Amino acid sequence: MNRMNRRWVLKNRPVGAITPDVLTLETVPLPELAEGQVLVRNIWLSLDPTNRIWMSDREQYLPPVELGAVMRGGTLGVVEESRDPNFTPGMLVSPGLSGWQDYEVAWGAMCRALPTLPGIHPTAFMSVLGVTGWTAYFGLLDIGQPKPNETVVVSAAAGAVGSIVGQIAKIKGARVIGIAGGPDKCRWLVDELGFDGAIDYRSEDVGAALDRLCPNGIDVNFENVGGPIMDAVMERMNDFSRMPLCGMISTYNAEGEVPGPRFFDRVLMRRIKVQGFIVLDYFPRMEEAVTALAGWLLEGKLKYKVHVEHGLENAPDALGRLFTGNHDGKLLVQIGPEPAG
Amino acid sequence: MNRMNRRWVLKNRPVGAITPDVLTLETVPLPELAEGQVLVRNIWLSLDPTNRIWMSDREQYLPPVELGAVMRGGTLGVVEESRDPNFTPGMLVSPGLSGWQDYEVAWGAMCRALPTLPGIHPTAFMSVLGVTGWTAYFGLLDIGQPKPNETVVVSAAAGAVGSIVGQIAKIKGARVIGIAGGPDKCRWLVDELGFDGAIDYRSEDVGAALDRLCPNGIDVNFENVGGPIMDAVMERMNDFSRMPLCGMISTYNAEGEVPGPRFFDRVLMRRIKVQGFIVLDYFPRMEEAVTALAGWLLEGKLKYKVHVEHGLENAPDALGRLFTGNHDGKLLVQIGPEPAG
Repeated sequence: MNRMNRRWVLKNRPVGAITPDVLTLETVPLPELAEGQVLVRNIWLSLDPTNRIWMSDREQYLPPVELGAVMRGGTLGVVEESRDPNFTPGMLVSPGLSGWQDYEVAWGAMCRALPTLPGIHPTAFMSVLGVTGWTAYFGLLDIGQPKPNETVVVSAAAGAVGSIVGQIAKIKGARVIGIAGGPDKCRWLVDELGFDGAIDYRSEDVGAALDRLCPNGIDVNFENVGGPIMDAVMERMNDFSRMPLCGMISTYNAEGEVPGPRFFDRVLMRRIKVQGFIVLDYFPRMEEAVTALAGWLLEGKLKYKVHVEHGLENAPDALGRLFTGNHDGKLLVQIGPEPAG
Repeated sequence: MNRMNRRWVLKNRPVGAITPDVLTLETVPLPELAEGQVLVRNIWLSLDPTNRIWMSDREQYLPPVELGAVMRGGTLGVVEESRDPNFTPGMLVSPGLSGWQDYEVAWGAMCRALPTLPGIHPTAFMSVLGVTGWTAYFGLLDIGQPKPNETVVVSAAAGAVGSIVGQIAKIKGARVIGIAGGPDKCRWLVDELGFDGAIDYRSEDVGAALDRLCPNGIDVNFENVGGPIMDAVMERMNDFSRMPLCGMISTYNAEGEVPGPRFFDRVLMRRIKVQGFIVLDYFPRMEEAVTALAGWLLEGKLKYKVHVEHGLENAPDALGRLFTGNHDGKLLVQIGPEPAG
């Protein structure tokens, strides 16, 4: 077996935005498969805000990617060779956390074979039916616990997670206001996804817009961005409100200390629950989320968008789109051709 | 009825520390009792950090005390006259939230008659068996949920609430580290209350001391003080740890904005639950707390200290002790003589 594998290796930890010296693309031969291993050809690579955290050596929830190691990432691929009897060539699999590379030599025990759903493209397993959807599902329902007629605010609302959060909140009977960047995204939230309102943080004063759109205050803040948008929302949260803390992307490129929330005293005065979570912790309950999400998807109650960039070589540039918002829905890089059929 | 009532009236909202122009002592005649009312002679007045919040017009959980109104406060007193058949002269009662005054004309329906417990002084109902104890009980057990062998840190640990929190945590099998001001308080925590360690924030680097005393990190942070001490604790909280946010006394005299927690990103990365609470919200469950606390008290498992200042006229000066730590345990002002017997 002399197949070659292209892979992005972390060379330097980024300072601020990701610059060309951070990652380098190298080509190396693939090792032979050991008994129990599977060769997966990665087709799609998931790009997520947390990738920026993994590149740094700041405090985080997994070990940072080591310098000299392949950049970590979620992928979906097809089995090309197998020394695990559960997997045969042609099967669509998630090899768990793989890397930014053409191939993954994975342990079969770590792979998850994906079903074929009628009318559902496989990339759904990298968005609404995958980690993205589970993040929305567990963060909103386990921590946020929206009740009918409560007001839910979600930031990065047109993003992969935010757009699912808002739709689940609608399914649960809540009023949903999304915060997103630009009129097109805001229109999509209201006209296509059924949000009750959307705020374009680029052109509107977020606080004033929240006052207008949330006359009864905010009961759940699904927090994706941190910074001044989080401050504006926290200032308007109700007594006994909940704040699932999913991410703070506005701070991930920051160097040095980031100011804490401006209105932290409200957490006390208004008896707010703020709870951080990482979707990895919910993996043992994955089937619950997949079942619910797939049901809503097949019933037409959930819509999602996938933004596909092409070519492994373009992955670092593509990641930058998460920080500028220059993408539309779940951001993927297509590394190789889809399997036939 | 021509009895006179001395009462402290809020004249100006404090700016920073409480100055003599904030409150004024006036003497006015008492009104006649209406049907259903009770005349309570206040004996003890509870002084609590939250009194400082009530004096301000900042965001808070009850309406601020209005300018020109009697300063709000918790009291314990004796019935002198009654037009409610449930109450007779001589009974010890809590008239609910009363004020900084000699007498309270209370609705009987709002009063709570207090039992006599063998060997227990009535001031226990203003500390371990009263609002103070309930605060410790519900904040620690409902939100903090310490498990055996987990590490609990409590700030203002020699204070009224903190000292009860630590002892309940010990009863539940946790390791307990207290943060307090001065060697005497620290000795009391360890030698008398059975804390596993104490940190004198006046003479020690709190972070270094936490590293030494909490080698397995911190599972529950019962937060009473805010500011740099809170930052030092939050920096060391474990994955899935809990932080009941009871108070932030270090910020109550501050003017303008107070910086948010320095290590707020840990809430996300370590999946911490931060939850504010106000003991008022738990009043419907008061009996549960009283029963548990009285049981532990009678079994000798709970100790408490009461620091009594004397004279209603000294209440404003006494309140200042909360902010300097120049008191020992639950801070009360004795307004009048105890009932005979």
